[in-house]
Amino acid sequence: GSELLAAERGQSDIHVEKLQELLLTKDVIERRNKILDILKSEPVFDKSSNYFNGRMERFERALAREKKLQLLRRKHNWTTDELRTASEAVGEPGPYALHESMFKITIGEQGTPEQQEKFLKPATDYKIIGCYAQTELGHGSNVRGLETTATWNPEDKTFTIHSPHLTASKWWIGSLGRTANFACVMAQLYIGGKSFGPHPFIVQVRDLKTHQPLENIHVGDIGPKFGYNTMDNGFLLFNKVKVPHFNMLGRFSRIDPQTNKYVRQGSPSLIYGTLTWVRSNIVMQAGSVLARGVTIATRYCAVRRQFQDRDAPPGEKGENPVLNYTMVQIRLLPLLAATFALHFTGKGMMHMYQENQKRMNGSGKGRESETRGAGPEETQAGSDILADLHATSCGLKSLSSSIAAEGLEVCRRACGGHGYSSFSGIGSWYADYLPTVTWEGDNFMLTQQVARYLLKSARSVLSGAKPSNETTRILSDFRSRSEIGCAFDILGSDEDLVSAFAWRASFLTFEALKHRDDNKKPWNDLLVDFYRLSKAHSQYLVVRNFYDALKHGNIGREVDATTHDVLWKLFRLWALHTLEQEGSEFFASGAASRHQISLARTNAVMKLLKEIRPHAVSLVDGWGFDDWVLDSSLGRFDGKVYEDMFHRASELNPLNGVTVDPYPENEVLFKKVEPLAKSKL
Amino acid sequence: GSELLAAERGQSDIHVEKLQELLLTKDVIERRNKILDILKSEPVFDKSSNYFNGRMERFERALAREKKLQLLRRKHNWTTDELRTASEAVGEPGPYALHESMFKITIGEQGTPEQQEKFLKPATDYKIIGCYAQTELGHGSNVRGLETTATWNPEDKTFTIHSPHLTASKWWIGSLGRTANFACVMAQLYIGGKSFGPHPFIVQVRDLKTHQPLENIHVGDIGPKFGYNTMDNGFLLFNKVKVPHFNMLGRFSRIDPQTNKYVRQGSPSLIYGTLTWVRSNIVMQAGSVLARGVTIATRYCAVRRQFQDRDAPPGEKGENPVLNYTMVQIRLLPLLAATFALHFTGKGMMHMYQENQKRMNGSGKGRESETRGAGPEETQAGSDILADLHATSCGLKSLSSSIAAEGLEVCRRACGGHGYSSFSGIGSWYADYLPTVTWEGDNFMLTQQVARYLLKSARSVLSGAKPSNETTRILSDFRSRSEIGCAFDILGSDEDLVSAFAWRASFLTFEALKHRDDNKKPWNDLLVDFYRLSKAHSQYLVVRNFYDALKHGNIGREVDATTHDVLWKLFRLWALHTLEQEGSEFFASGAASRHQISLARTNAVMKLLKEIRPHAVSLVDGWGFDDWVLDSSLGRFDGKVYEDMFHRASELNPLNGVTVDPYPENEVLFKKVEPLAKSKL
Ligand SMILES: Cc1cc2nc3c(=O)[nH]c(=O)nc-3n(C[C@H](O)[C@H](O)[C@H](O)COP(=O)(O)OP(=O)(O)OC[C@H]3O[C@@H](n4cnc5c(N)ncnc54)[C@H](O)[C@@H]3O)c2cc1C
Ligand SMILES: Cc1cc2nc3c(=O)[nH]c(=O)nc-3n(C[C@H](O)[C@H](O)[C@H](O)COP(=O)(O)OP(=O)(O)OC[C@H]3O[C@@H](n4cnc5c(N)ncnc54)[C@H](O)[C@@H]3O)c2cc1C
Repeated sequence: GSELLAAERGQSDIHVEKLQELLLTKDVIERRNKILDILKSEPVFDKSSNYFNGRMERFERALAREKKLQLLRRKHNWTTDELRTASEAVGEPGPYALHESMFKITIGEQGTPEQQEKFLKPATDYKIIGCYAQTELGHGSNVRGLETTATWNPEDKTFTIHSPHLTASKWWIGSLGRTANFACVMAQLYIGGKSFGPHPFIVQVRDLKTHQPLENIHVGDIGPKFGYNTMDNGFLLFNKVKVPHFNMLGRFSRIDPQTNKYVRQGSPSLIYGTLTWVRSNIVMQAGSVLARGVTIATRYCAVRRQFQDRDAPPGEKGENPVLNYTMVQIRLLPLLAATFALHFTGKGMMHMYQENQKRMNGSGKGRESETRGAGPEETQAGSDILADLHATSCGLKSLSSSIAAEGLEVCRRACGGHGYSSFSGIGSWYADYLPTVTWEGDNFMLTQQVARYLLKSARSVLSGAKPSNETTRILSDFRSRSEIGCAFDILGSDEDLVSAFAWRASFLTFEALKHRDDNKKPWNDLLVDFYRLSKAHSQYLVVRNFYDALKHGNIGREVDATTHDVLWKLFRLWALHTLEQEGSEFFASGAASRHQISLARTNAVMKLLKEIRPHAVSLVDGWGFDDWVLDSSLGRFDGKVYEDMFHRASELNPLNGVTVDPYPENEVLFKKVEPLAKSKL
Repeated sequence: GSELLAAERGQSDIHVEKLQELLLTKDVIERRNKILDILKSEPVFDKSSNYFNGRMERFERALAREKKLQLLRRKHNWTTDELRTASEAVGEPGPYALHESMFKITIGEQGTPEQQEKFLKPATDYKIIGCYAQTELGHGSNVRGLETTATWNPEDKTFTIHSPHLTASKWWIGSLGRTANFACVMAQLYIGGKSFGPHPFIVQVRDLKTHQPLENIHVGDIGPKFGYNTMDNGFLLFNKVKVPHFNMLGRFSRIDPQTNKYVRQGSPSLIYGTLTWVRSNIVMQAGSVLARGVTIATRYCAVRRQFQDRDAPPGEKGENPVLNYTMVQIRLLPLLAATFALHFTGKGMMHMYQENQKRMNGSGKGRESETRGAGPEETQAGSDILADLHATSCGLKSLSSSIAAEGLEVCRRACGGHGYSSFSGIGSWYADYLPTVTWEGDNFMLTQQVARYLLKSARSVLSGAKPSNETTRILSDFRSRSEIGCAFDILGSDEDLVSAFAWRASFLTFEALKHRDDNKKPWNDLLVDFYRLSKAHSQYLVVRNFYDALKHGNIGREVDATTHDVLWKLFRLWALHTLEQEGSEFFASGAASRHQISLARTNAVMKLLKEIRPHAVSLVDGWGFDDWVLDSSLGRFDGKVYEDMFHRASELNPLNGVTVDPYPENEVLFKKVEPLAKSKL
């Protein structure tokens, strides 16, 4: 394998180091390398038994790793970013994850200064360990439907937290199953019999010494999952548990203990911002999540040789690397392009987010949370930029996590039989990533929010309002040409290619609007249209961001000419491949002709595959994954695929220490169980 | 949950029992019930720890179950069909699987009567336990590239079996890792330095008493996989191991020990038939494989309620079962339709296979194996029916296993967060099924064989030959109308709908032929076109088989009028949904107009969803899965989803017996580990 990969690297003059710096930045690379050295020298992070261990051992080991990370953090004075880099390198969800993220974030954002003092400080010191308990057995997406109650007791100025039904049990709560002793619980606030909707309460659930559940609290782990088994997602039932007035997070609303009145204060725009931030992060990560699978599959398919090319001249012998087959290329290379497309989109999204934060902090303005779940449009005022940001983050979260998740499985399958082995390193990565399509807004449901926003924008355009942001601008452009149509040179001009995506998205927006406003179709009847609309709009955003990064960014200065050129080809491949896949819509909207779409497929895409092929291995090298991080026989940098597979199977596999009795009539199953080194196999 | 499912069942007048008999037949249902009673009464088949166990325990338990099945088989005198029914109900791949299938089948087919006497008899009695060792670390699809050698030694009339490189190691061999003591090994036959290609040899690999590997044999388990972990897939290396002349399976070729000459004898058409039979079986099973996921998701989505319908009149309160959302329906109901489409296609395929066997046995004719891997067309004579059967089985294997595998994941996601729990029962089923898209011909590569056949058929049509089978008939029809085009009333006539599929497939066939024969495009440049062509042709076959079953079968007599009517709707849903998904091709070929395609989506499909919706639960009930077989909290017949989730998490989950020490500075991880019943959680 080594010579094959060396040859691959030899045939491309992409400057890999520069590409790595473009994608990751020099600082981050240095930070990562420094941290990797530390991790690799600690035995607890040794990965060699990961693929063999069952749930109990995996969880135990994950807890050990989390503890060690905290000790290292103290020792090396790691920043939050450094800790995150370390966690990512370890590469498994750990039992402290929700403590580090949602528990602390929620207190930080929704707690008063006194509450932060009381809870955040010990949390940071790991004197208390928390989690974020929102979802219940019966309700996830529909937060307003939560059944856990928090009833205000005017007599003693406390709240009673209670789970009235089995379905009110908190469920899926990360870090709660075995680890946490505190929870931030979302519960329906009741004052004097009146409901005020879900609010956050800090509740202790286990004893700080014995770690046993407190009285009237039923808490435990919800059991094994498709992935994420190093995490203890938990359940939690309350039997009338009292917490003091102090424990309702009070930055944005509180109960006046004197009057027993509900008081709303400040503007929770920050919460709203966090949700957007979390989604933007998912977009940001999708590129590198996918890049792991693409790296593994691309390297392996360059090493894997199967069949001779029967059209090859008789002189040429030897088998073909399967990466030479166009049917392998059409599966992998567009995904390789997607890793870059998503990366630049994530960066664009983050930039947009930060711009907005600046603006908001300046003006002090914000708006109500719009995350109450999908449903028909609400009439709400508020900054158009903020609404745009929200919709963009919803649409892109949905699209990018779907591309990444589904792409990983495509990568796994492209590896043929060996892709099915745990040692491929793709399967477990995929399984752990999968919840991303469901949490932080189910990918299907989020599309309703995008559609709602687009409909609102389209109405504003129809009403003659001046375009106030990117979305209304493209909708206006479309409207202004409704009498004359369009003519995009999609194969000749990159700018036109981007415009064709904008055109199709705008077309679908006005179509949906017609159904909703003119034909008065019920919301539910339009969900499928909304899904398509959101997808179309988000695909436009991805193509636009990729284009802008190449055109207007300073990439030209950061990488060499070849790399820049290949990046443009990846842009075209991604855009044209997507366009061809969604051909019907482009055609129906008039954004591309039948002939253009057919040329895109049979000519342009096939030609791009050929042109990109020699650079494939160097391009994945550009993502700079360390072998230790990938933990994959197939994706090894040195191409020693078979040696590594064999080593793991024969030297590390505990099942090979077992001698079975194979005969049905004998009751004995394992007649001998030896540690591996001892057994003869 | 119970009332909700009862209400669902109440709103449909489908006669579920009749539907079950249509799908499974009365005999099979009886047989299954009888066997289920036996299995449920045996503690070893208790499934309650399946989702919790790690690889070692799962494998051990699987071996115990396999042994018990054999004992039960002897006790109850089970037929092969009955044993298979029992295995299916157990629902996990077991360590005897390859012994029961490929090992015995290969000896039965390719062995001489003497070899059958010597190997098949003890195999049937489980005195020896075998496996089928073809794939190697370095070669899977390309069987001709196998590196294991079998060199004929004229001196002592033996073969030397040898693995010259690491990549020659047998790999992925089911039942070999720990269980088998014999292997049917495919090795390159060498006589006097000349290669004769891969041949099957029976080789003993472990001692029958000690079960230790024999000398010069390195054998073991290849390690954990994405699924299939109850099976011990193995590796196997030979260091010049001698086997007697007798051990080369000699029905179709042998070495004359006197002259040392290679002798071909008889016609291996049967082998060829078996491969077709194996693929036909995959087609046959795909429907019910998918039906398991669809059953679980449909029942759960009828029980799961989330959000109120905001367009609902103010009087109507309560949350909506998520199955009412069109975005859930569009994911699940076409898959529900697919279960039936695949079922009838599998039946059609099997019928075709049996007809052909009859014919072949009559005429005694056959042909060479065509399974040497993908590549350009070979010019080979032979019966057109046989070639058609072969191509059909390749194309349908590829299409149907992809639909089933990908459909299962769609079902899992449709269940939202709970779909990710192991207790959903979909994840493990999906993971175990996944290899089906890779083995028995990788789904992508098989499409080359289909295309090759279609090109050959098209050439014969162009040459003016009379249509000799279904495929050449539709190609001729298409050609004969090439000057006048077509006009299919796809929304008004079911027959026209089928014809539109035939038209599009024929169009793509002649397009591909033009590229290959007129433009002389290299084979490799056309692989993507071939893939699309194969898919189009196979989609036609599915639609055709579904149509024929409803139109010409005696379904009308077997089920009531409502059921028959709903089945027609499922046919339309499947066909129109597929047509819409592939809209570009239907349009490009002229098989449907843009307006028709758009109507199919916005009108016809949406209307069909509405009409089928009330019958959804009854339709999945029609598949008749027993709760014990499904082993799913979400798919329970009685709808007690939440109770079951809670029970499994809190009563069965061993992690809840563990008390952790959560603090980073303490090295202790598990401070107490108790059996579950003891722990307080
Ligand atoms: C691994 C994992 C970790 C998690 N960690 C946490 C945690 O730490 N804390 C926490 O609070 N939660 C956590 N969750 C829960 C997670 O946030 C929810 O599962 C998620 O919000 C989805 O909600 P649900 O499961 O209720 O899906 P549901 O809403 O029940 O969705 C079921 C199906 O119905 C569809 N659907 C529902 N409503 C509509 C509608 N209005 N229109 C159209 N379709 C609809 C969905 O698309 C989906 O297909 C976690 C989940 C997982 C899988
Ligand atoms: C769970 C499991 C159980 C198995 N059990 C057995 C067993 O009992 N006995 C046994 O002998 N084998 C067994 N196998 C092996 C199985 O048959 C092979 O994995 C399968 O045939 C695929 O071959 P491969 O892995 O070599 O894929 P490869 O041929 O290496 O394919 C790799 C990639 O290259 C592509 N590709 C390869 N050639 C071409 C081409 N000419 N044109 C275009 N694309 C191409 C493929 O589409 C794929 O994407 C098992 C496999 C699995 C996963």
